[in-house]
Amino acid sequence: MATVKSDIEIAREAKMKPIMEIGKGLGIPEKDLIPYGHTKAKVALSYIDSLKSKKNGKLILVTAINPTPAGEGKTTTTVGLGDGLNRIGKKAMVALREPSLGPCFGMKGGAAGGGYAQIVPMEDINLHFTGDFHAITSAHNLLSAMIDNHIYWGNELGIDTRRVAWRRVMDMNDRALREIVCSLGGVANGYPREAGFDITVASEIMAILCLSTSIEDLERRIGQIVIGYKKDKSPVLAKDIKAPGAMVVLLKDALQPNLVQTLENNPAFVHGGPFANIAHGCNSVMATQSALKLADYVVTEAGFGADLGAEKFFDIKCRKAGLSPSATVIVATVRALKMHGGAAKDELKTENVEVLKKGLANLGRHIENVKKFGVPIAVAINHFISDTDAEVQAVIDYCKTHGVEAFRCTHWAEGGKGTEALAKHVAELADKGSAQFKPIYDENVSLFDKVKTIAREIYRADDVVADKSVRDQLKAWEAAGYGKFPICMAKTQYSFSTDPNLKGAPTNHVLPVREVRLSAGAEFIVVICGDIMTMPGLPKVPSAEVIGLDDKGQIVGLF
Amino acid sequence: MATVKSDIEIAREAKMKPIMEIGKGLGIPEKDLIPYGHTKAKVALSYIDSLKSKKNGKLILVTAINPTPAGEGKTTTTVGLGDGLNRIGKKAMVALREPSLGPCFGMKGGAAGGGYAQIVPMEDINLHFTGDFHAITSAHNLLSAMIDNHIYWGNELGIDTRRVAWRRVMDMNDRALREIVCSLGGVANGYPREAGFDITVASEIMAILCLSTSIEDLERRIGQIVIGYKKDKSPVLAKDIKAPGAMVVLLKDALQPNLVQTLENNPAFVHGGPFANIAHGCNSVMATQSALKLADYVVTEAGFGADLGAEKFFDIKCRKAGLSPSATVIVATVRALKMHGGAAKDELKTENVEVLKKGLANLGRHIENVKKFGVPIAVAINHFISDTDAEVQAVIDYCKTHGVEAFRCTHWAEGGKGTEALAKHVAELADKGSAQFKPIYDENVSLFDKVKTIAREIYRADDVVADKSVRDQLKAWEAAGYGKFPICMAKTQYSFSTDPNLKGAPTNHVLPVREVRLSAGAEFIVVICGDIMTMPGLPKVPSAEVIGLDDKGQIVGLF
Repeated sequence: MATVKSDIEIAREAKMKPIMEIGKGLGIPEKDLIPYGHTKAKVALSYIDSLKSKKNGKLILVTAINPTPAGEGKTTTTVGLGDGLNRIGKKAMVALREPSLGPCFGMKGGAAGGGYAQIVPMEDINLHFTGDFHAITSAHNLLSAMIDNHIYWGNELGIDTRRVAWRRVMDMNDRALREIVCSLGGVANGYPREAGFDITVASEIMAILCLSTSIEDLERRIGQIVIGYKKDKSPVLAKDIKAPGAMVVLLKDALQPNLVQTLENNPAFVHGGPFANIAHGCNSVMATQSALKLADYVVTEAGFGADLGAEKFFDIKCRKAGLSPSATVIVATVRALKMHGGAAKDELKTENVEVLKKGLANLGRHIENVKKFGVPIAVAINHFISDTDAEVQAVIDYCKTHGVEAFRCTHWAEGGKGTEALAKHVAELADKGSAQFKPIYDENVSLFDKVKTIAREIYRADDVVADKSVRDQLKAWEAAGYGKFPICMAKTQYSFSTDPNLKGAPTNHVLPVREVRLSAGAEFIVVICGDIMTMPGLPKVPSAEVIGLDDKGQIVGLF
Repeated sequence: MATVKSDIEIAREAKMKPIMEIGKGLGIPEKDLIPYGHTKAKVALSYIDSLKSKKNGKLILVTAINPTPAGEGKTTTTVGLGDGLNRIGKKAMVALREPSLGPCFGMKGGAAGGGYAQIVPMEDINLHFTGDFHAITSAHNLLSAMIDNHIYWGNELGIDTRRVAWRRVMDMNDRALREIVCSLGGVANGYPREAGFDITVASEIMAILCLSTSIEDLERRIGQIVIGYKKDKSPVLAKDIKAPGAMVVLLKDALQPNLVQTLENNPAFVHGGPFANIAHGCNSVMATQSALKLADYVVTEAGFGADLGAEKFFDIKCRKAGLSPSATVIVATVRALKMHGGAAKDELKTENVEVLKKGLANLGRHIENVKKFGVPIAVAINHFISDTDAEVQAVIDYCKTHGVEAFRCTHWAEGGKGTEALAKHVAELADKGSAQFKPIYDENVSLFDKVKTIAREIYRADDVVADKSVRDQLKAWEAAGYGKFPICMAKTQYSFSTDPNLKGAPTNHVLPVREVRLSAGAEFIVVICGDIMTMPGLPKVPSAEVIGLDDKGQIVGLF
């Protein structure tokens, strides 16, 4: 029996086309494609501007059931569906998030799909890629340096050094930087104060870049960032520090979407990667909007399960960018559904239709939820070899009871060929034009009512519990003019509830809000329920210890 | 009268050729040129390897008198001479350092030449360029994170947390990060300890990258880095932390030289930019060696004045890389020489041959010094409009007394046309083959004797003063096997002495050594005389406040 090839082996055997050729296929003139090597390119913003009057293609969201240790394969399915659509003769492209560099050296694998449904060049995409995250790190930390510099030179704005809200970032898993005291060492180094670092993907600049629709919008949003507060608790903005212009100079190239290709030589945008908890967790608006001008079908994904990812995609990204999705694909695996039904990780290889049926409640609730946004649904069963026919059939039958078709997809093993049936159905759903997209809450209701609506309609919580201080803070922000902002929920991705162990479709729970944060530049309110880690650490044996170059100069140990 | 155009205006009017065409002119196959946009590219290491058997071109060093606030124009002269050589029909290229991003937001202008002697695209070169410095930042900080992670998970190596020598880096002027306490916030964040950040150009990784001759050499050197000490004071190396493999993966692209062009469309490598005080201050060995294979004449520069820059270029870079320079150009300006003669900055526009003659002692001593390395010399008088004919003639006459020809060079205003006479002479000097390059000290003498030799022969100090602890440290390193390392002097660039106010050619001074540091990966011993700043701060009104994009998307305020 043949050995199963690793993702990196498959990626290396890929026959990539020159990126200029991929761009040509989309009709992009050579001068408007800015190459980064022979297989990556950025698309000039001026060219994207010139497409404004073109008709939009159809937008298809790929989301998933609540993640489990068994894996779902959302990115893999997104890539596979894109390839499937192209195989059946549609002009399709995918739009994905950029992976973060830091976690590659911990224990996370790559984030460019898997098996025969990958985007390439996968090593580059997972490492420095086109430098977007480095640019975000630079821009973020320039603002940080300018804040402490302002304080150092006399603090004309009267910033309360105990209330500096703007931290620093690094694209590295470095727990030692989570909480620091800076400006030590004497007069020449400033006024000692508590500070800290987040990982770059948690930067508000990342969220801003991903929601910006132009350079002007980027600069406007950066100017709005609240960097801290004065003694009288009034906010100090990034524009008060006079930082936005220079930050935009650092970010101007990063705002251009990155073009790469799938293993089947279909075009893919990979651009932006905001955290899916304290931010909205989807690729850039620039990339999605550009893709919609260049292709008839655009397949994109959102972070975590549909309770977090799809909700934010709809309520934040689509609402704010005026996007109108035509169809949603919910990815599920037999293995993960069995875990939702109560199976342990080591029991997943054994057929167990009963436990699977129990776990289907999780999928069912996501189907019901997505319907509330007015978007038609298909289910992709991302196939693993241990899945039995009876199990797959049980999923298909269950979905039928919800009026939804489910498809066994074998893109991991077969590429686009493995999603042809799904692709045909999704294209039909999209072409039918039955979608009547609407966000789940109105922007004009109170901030707390927005949280309540999400909790009730999506999480099925009985109530939302928040301290008076939290509710007062929300009211204060409404008074300050932030009341129309959407909500960005930060809670565990493993359950509809805030308890990660409550799998399936839990009821009789309440949503406790621990903290709220204002992302005035990203233009949303972060509502935190539970512990949120914004700077990961490395594990005891980080994969960095085994990563290296072999004799041929090829990377080993990375994936 | 026409307004004088700014550097950025001239650069924007440049008619750049596609970088593929520039590469073609050098004979580089398209597949071995990795484009970063249409006007920047990296050269594949495999292609560079394939050139090994080719004959080397002639190497020409551009150095200068001790810098003054009047400016000398070393980079400008390097670019101008490269263009001049091409104009007189020689196949020449230049090899320069990459500028650091952080200081652009303080008050430093760009570092890509000036006037009509520039390298382009200058804005890109001064900002993210091809991402080399970001890669160095990542690799450096990965090692830092792995060190604290090792301590966090039990500290098997027994690192003394008070003696961690490896700091973190950021490419930003951020004084608040100079001295910090990290790992605060409780058990999950590690063991609090003192730490700090340097600017990326001060990273030992930068020095290592610039001295490495291959990927293997890079990994070997990284492995040798001393990251700290155990309780028994024995060293802990980067290879003990198992970091080198992953760091090399982050640095593999950064090791490839960057190809750009001059305003006159001549090829230029711009690669690597180590500090000129705690490191050796010249562009990468990879770039210089590659250029020598691709061109008949390679013009390169070294940091600061010849006492620091040329000495390190000869004693560290040339010695270690087996380079044999054929000629040296010492850049001087009438204005700066007058300052060395005692003129104040506001007196420079008035003719004053007497004070100029006094200041020529500074130039004279540099000429004598460079002769000791066995390399023939020419002097470039970088012309300013306020220079009078009598002043220029005084410089020419003075140089004749040293057996050296000096040339009035007008490359700032005229490009390569302004250095034709210099170019002809330098080509003759190089072609004559009279150079008999030798370092100033033998690698086998004791470390302290090396310092003494530099102090005596180059600085003309009467003696070297160092505490017993410093001398003991040097002996300890000799015993540990580091005795053959060259010395990397870190002292003020403004004087031959350690007193920045002693201009001209001071005598009767001693060299006080304050501290010595081991750069075991870069393979040199840093000898520090005076205050050395490895993390700059921003000024009261940083240029970041006025930097931005105009309505056309062009950068304003940067230069």
